[in-house]
Amino acid sequence: MIIPKESELTPVQLREVEDIVQQYGCKLQAIVGFHRTIYAVLGEEREQVMVNRILGLSYIDRFDAVDSPYKLMDIHSELASHQIRIGKHIMGESPFIIAGQCTIDPANPNYFLETAHAVKEAGAKAIRGGVWKPRTMPYSFQGDDSSMKILVEARAQTGLPIDTEVMDEHQLMVAMEAQVDILQIGTRNALNYSLLRKVGELTANTNTVVLLKRSMSMGPVSEFIAAAEYIAAGGNPNVMLCPRGTVPKMEGYRNHPDESITPLLKEKTWAPVVVDPSHSVGRAKYVAATSLAAMAYGADGLIIESHIEAQKGIGDDPKQAIHPRELAALIQKAEALWALTRNKEAKLAL
Amino acid sequence: MIIPKESELTPVQLREVEDIVQQYGCKLQAIVGFHRTIYAVLGEEREQVMVNRILGLSYIDRFDAVDSPYKLMDIHSELASHQIRIGKHIMGESPFIIAGQCTIDPANPNYFLETAHAVKEAGAKAIRGGVWKPRTMPYSFQGDDSSMKILVEARAQTGLPIDTEVMDEHQLMVAMEAQVDILQIGTRNALNYSLLRKVGELTANTNTVVLLKRSMSMGPVSEFIAAAEYIAAGGNPNVMLCPRGTVPKMEGYRNHPDESITPLLKEKTWAPVVVDPSHSVGRAKYVAATSLAAMAYGADGLIIESHIEAQKGIGDDPKQAIHPRELAALIQKAEALWALTRNKEAKLAL
Amino acid sequence: MIIPKESELTPVQLREVEDIVQQYGCKLQAIVGFHRTIYAVLGEEREQVMVNRILGLSYIDRFDAVDSPYKLMDIHSELASHQIRIGKHIMGESPFIIAGQCTIDPANPNYFLETAHAVKEAGAKAIRGGVWKPRTMPYSFQGDDSSMKILVEARAQTGLPIDTEVMDEHQLMVAMEAQVDILQIGTRNALNYSLLRKVGELTANTNTVVLLKRSMSMGPVSEFIAAAEYIAAGGNPNVMLCPRGTVPKMEGYRNHPDESITPLLKEKTWAPVVVDPSHSVGRAKYVAATSLAAMAYGADGLIIESHIEAQKGIGDDPKQAIHPRELAALIQKAEALWALTRNKEAKLAL
Amino acid sequence: MIIPKESELTPVQLREVEDIVQQYGCKLQAIVGFHRTIYAVLGEEREQVMVNRILGLSYIDRFDAVDSPYKLMDIHSELASHQIRIGKHIMGESPFIIAGQCTIDPANPNYFLETAHAVKEAGAKAIRGGVWKPRTMPYSFQGDDSSMKILVEARAQTGLPIDTEVMDEHQLMVAMEAQVDILQIGTRNALNYSLLRKVGELTANTNTVVLLKRSMSMGPVSEFIAAAEYIAAGGNPNVMLCPRGTVPKMEGYRNHPDESITPLLKEKTWAPVVVDPSHSVGRAKYVAATSLAAMAYGADGLIIESHIEAQKGIGDDPKQAIHPRELAALIQKAEALWALTRNKEAKLAL
Repeated sequence: MIIPKESELTPVQLREVEDIVQQYGCKLQAIVGFHRTIYAVLGEEREQVMVNRILGLSYIDRFDAVDSPYKLMDIHSELASHQIRIGKHIMGESPFIIAGQCTIDPANPNYFLETAHAVKEAGAKAIRGGVWKPRTMPYSFQGDDSSMKILVEARAQTGLPIDTEVMDEHQLMVAMEAQVDILQIGTRNALNYSLLRKVGELTANTNTVVLLKRSMSMGPVSEFIAAAEYIAAGGNPNVMLCPRGTVPKMEGYRNHPDESITPLLKEKTWAPVVVDPSHSVGRAKYVAATSLAAMAYGADGLIIESHIEAQKGIGDDPKQAIHPRELAALIQKAEALWALTRNKEAKLAL
Repeated sequence: MIIPKESELTPVQLREVEDIVQQYGCKLQAIVGFHRTIYAVLGEEREQVMVNRILGLSYIDRFDAVDSPYKLMDIHSELASHQIRIGKHIMGESPFIIAGQCTIDPANPNYFLETAHAVKEAGAKAIRGGVWKPRTMPYSFQGDDSSMKILVEARAQTGLPIDTEVMDEHQLMVAMEAQVDILQIGTRNALNYSLLRKVGELTANTNTVVLLKRSMSMGPVSEFIAAAEYIAAGGNPNVMLCPRGTVPKMEGYRNHPDESITPLLKEKTWAPVVVDPSHSVGRAKYVAATSLAAMAYGADGLIIESHIEAQKGIGDDPKQAIHPRELAALIQKAEALWALTRNKEAKLAL
Repeated sequence: MIIPKESELTPVQLREVEDIVQQYGCKLQAIVGFHRTIYAVLGEEREQVMVNRILGLSYIDRFDAVDSPYKLMDIHSELASHQIRIGKHIMGESPFIIAGQCTIDPANPNYFLETAHAVKEAGAKAIRGGVWKPRTMPYSFQGDDSSMKILVEARAQTGLPIDTEVMDEHQLMVAMEAQVDILQIGTRNALNYSLLRKVGELTANTNTVVLLKRSMSMGPVSEFIAAAEYIAAGGNPNVMLCPRGTVPKMEGYRNHPDESITPLLKEKTWAPVVVDPSHSVGRAKYVAATSLAAMAYGADGLIIESHIEAQKGIGDDPKQAIHPRELAALIQKAEALWALTRNKEAKLAL
Repeated sequence: MIIPKESELTPVQLREVEDIVQQYGCKLQAIVGFHRTIYAVLGEEREQVMVNRILGLSYIDRFDAVDSPYKLMDIHSELASHQIRIGKHIMGESPFIIAGQCTIDPANPNYFLETAHAVKEAGAKAIRGGVWKPRTMPYSFQGDDSSMKILVEARAQTGLPIDTEVMDEHQLMVAMEAQVDILQIGTRNALNYSLLRKVGELTANTNTVVLLKRSMSMGPVSEFIAAAEYIAAGGNPNVMLCPRGTVPKMEGYRNHPDESITPLLKEKTWAPVVVDPSHSVGRAKYVAATSLAAMAYGADGLIIESHIEAQKGIGDDPKQAIHPRELAALIQKAEALWALTRNKEAKLAL
């Protein structure tokens, strides 16, 4: 939709615009209002060079595209029926809960392994553990390759799939070699298109699932799905979207909780949504409420920080991680709420 | 806490600050760090003139108060055990659902009365109806005093308490005369301190309840409770807080949903929290999810726009109001979720 | 512009929509894209009841209006050539600087009068002084009617027009009686439509100028101009717009400075723009930079807190007010920058 | 500063906290207020493991650090007198203007070369040209290694330093080989710590300057300087900070202009600040006003998109780039404003 600066185009201007769009196989249609006239472009309206040439005309104010730009992640794409499986879990059939420590302490592998067993016991379906950690200051502990074998050991002992964040190509190679089941792209790299494309290419034609966190500066829908499109375009359509809180940070919380974007995403994309309440609110005491809110909004899963002895954690755990005992209670309620809102028979039973 | 611009105060500066705080009955205590020293004010640290005099010193950077400024609404005030009753309902015992039309159409009273019966049938505990409406443009329909008798008639027919928004002293007098049970202060007037104080004074020593909506520009906690304090200081402690969405507006929603502030409020104030999902999201299709999320976050109630034939509404109803049939389903789930999260016995039953 | 939920309307749906718009004298025009079709409403597209009826149809997703809703404040309205004069100043001819204390201390009238003389000396064209003050807590000093005679005395002594904020009808009556030249509507009341309309009505056909501050929750343009429209529709078109910082508050500043909205406002309305740097940044040390930035963005004036002895002020002065000596330097630079950007001859001289 | 959940620590709790801090060589100091007591940690208060252990205690609410965390970029660090030179320019002596096209079109090298000559003529001190471009959709043109030789040719022809954005290690290697003078890190990678560190390491002990753009989700000060610290910690202290607009995006602008953070940055770091008005506002018509505002706020330079025939640009140019003719006028005014605000003699002359 072309919006002119003045109330309508002059005949000369109109001819100039028509000449341009026709070169790209499009047609122009005027929409005549009482006070102003705007112009629709019929055809492949997103052709960048055509758009640029139109925007370059001094008498044009704006160009608003109408159609969806997503080829693979769009809810109407041919991938819409694509089913994501992680281990024995089929996304969408019941709440998929990933749980575990923020950061694996390479000096204390037992903490991590005990936590892994405890969250499995509590009902988690996958184990999270940070091998590497993005930290605001360069002088903080940033993780260590050696923690990968602890993560892999946790998978061996529990039989559950494992999840870790990768931030660059080196880490990606280490994680691929260890056949990590779920690769997280963190909020700080959610717009790192070189990494997104590389992840898509290197995991093409594997069962690896990519959990893409929302960048703290992303709008809730279009830019988020566009970033997922980079991974899918690279070759791997197993992408899940993870709201994790955003700016402006909210008085009292670590971030601005954003589980409420779930239905907005689900109207535009088929990708499962897995909410991260731990980073959204940043305090253990609020995690359960946000988890249930995410279920109420239709999320397919949750990723939760849990630790058997949080104050000994070396990452964000001390204030953020919940105990596996609380996790068990939370999962039970999440399942009841899933049934209440999505399961016909359960609804009757209530 | 006094923070100097340099790493510490010089002896002369220190003496000057001490002189000031002593005049107001306070004492100074230095907190000596490795790199800088800051100074605590022991005593009535909020005394405005003292604070101003200290801030006026060229070598002082900041003054951060430590204690709570709320005398009446604070969770530790003597009012903390104050119970709010509306009709037969005691706030906190079960979900308090207010429902009804955005705006009463004075030309079609039957729509409103039929809606009132239908929302009662659906399980609502009070009837909302806009007699007057704030509108962005001065040329839109702004409501009419004559609608008050329709609202009163709805109370007579259903036996339920009634709720309406007042925006100035004239409307307040009309509403007081009609003995409206719940007076709403809307988001645009949430910082209109003259009105807040007047409402508190005129409803002092009555059973009238004031439902204070959050201003779209308020932080989630302190400024909101301070506005409630104006009403209580005026003489009426029957104040309930209503999160109703805020800016920045979110792509896809009418506002940025903010039911997640409920636990933050409940840590600081004893006031009940009644969430408005209708204005938070602005689209009927998202109202049920936001309502359940509000329950998950611990809200005491909900205020929901409902209409028997939304497209005939004259306010925001056409896209925002849900049908009383949907309201009934929503209330049933809200009660199940309340039981799941707050009722020990029900929890066992699930 | 009507946007359907599906890619196009069915023939039956199309007929239903056409029936509605024709009842309101409008016509429908389809805009056929490759992937979807949308529909323009030709005619009085903003007729609220028509819009509501269309939005109420289950198969309609959105209705986007195209034309400007402002009748009086629009840059293309017949008022566009309206010139605002304050005392001897004609807005737009040179920088209009309002300066003075945040709050008049009724116990110390001399501070205010000395400040008034000093800011006149510094080059200010009008005197500001808060007779009443909105305060976050009900227990803080809120100002006093008795300060009005001090403000009036300052006008008598300096010969400059005076400016004060009014928050309710009582204050408005007191200010009208004193023939205050510039009435400020503060950020907290910028959406208090009852007050805006009342101010417009009571000052209709006078020379009184209304300085409308931006609400901290307003978008930069449309909602702001719409609020001004209330005053003009009440009867007084002498309205000036005042950006004064907004939420989300910015680390380091009191608010998020917003002088940059000036050119956006000036594209849509003829109203003069007077920026408030003092509240935008909230610290005296940043006021000069923000003032010059406002000039760079094309503002017509500034309203600045100044005090001869800031640490003795009883309002926000201690950290916010600049000394009249700094004001003089600031005004000199503001005038040089005005010349640099707006005065052809001066530009050549540089 | 340790803030307990209750109004003070019990003796047992106090002993437990003291035990912890003593293990890390710190001491505890109580600050006794009327209503609550808080506790200062004297010593290396930022030791992460100590902080985590304290935060893990159930009766502790918060831990607020007091000292600056920046070792190299802090305004009080030993690098504070470090002078950045680019070609013949010494940062801080006069406005440093970088200008040129958003994206180099490898198919039309002459456009870029002609633009380079034109911006030099207009007064620019360095040439920008995008060899690679981050694009929201994976299907848009992303730039091409082959454009690097065009950029290098522009340096050869004009004698001016060159600037381009790098997004990954491959691009970094190509740019290093071409001895690009200024490496830009874009907003999407401003929190990509792996890349920041790598850039610092590979450019250690060279004259290469890194221009770090602000991430759209960064707070204005601390997180921004911390990201710069990664580059300096990698080995290259030649870092300049670039505000470039942020979210929430503002009605009318491409982003929320943020040149006003300049004085906040300059209070905390010695790094030069170079503002990007082109991306801040996103429309050519607003670029000059924002550029002057940046000068008013104390910026050391500007980076501006300019193009001899903007509508033929293949990046953001059509609406964003200004003509070199407008650039010349802008630079002249920027220099006059610099003189007005920073040059004592020029100030007298005005």
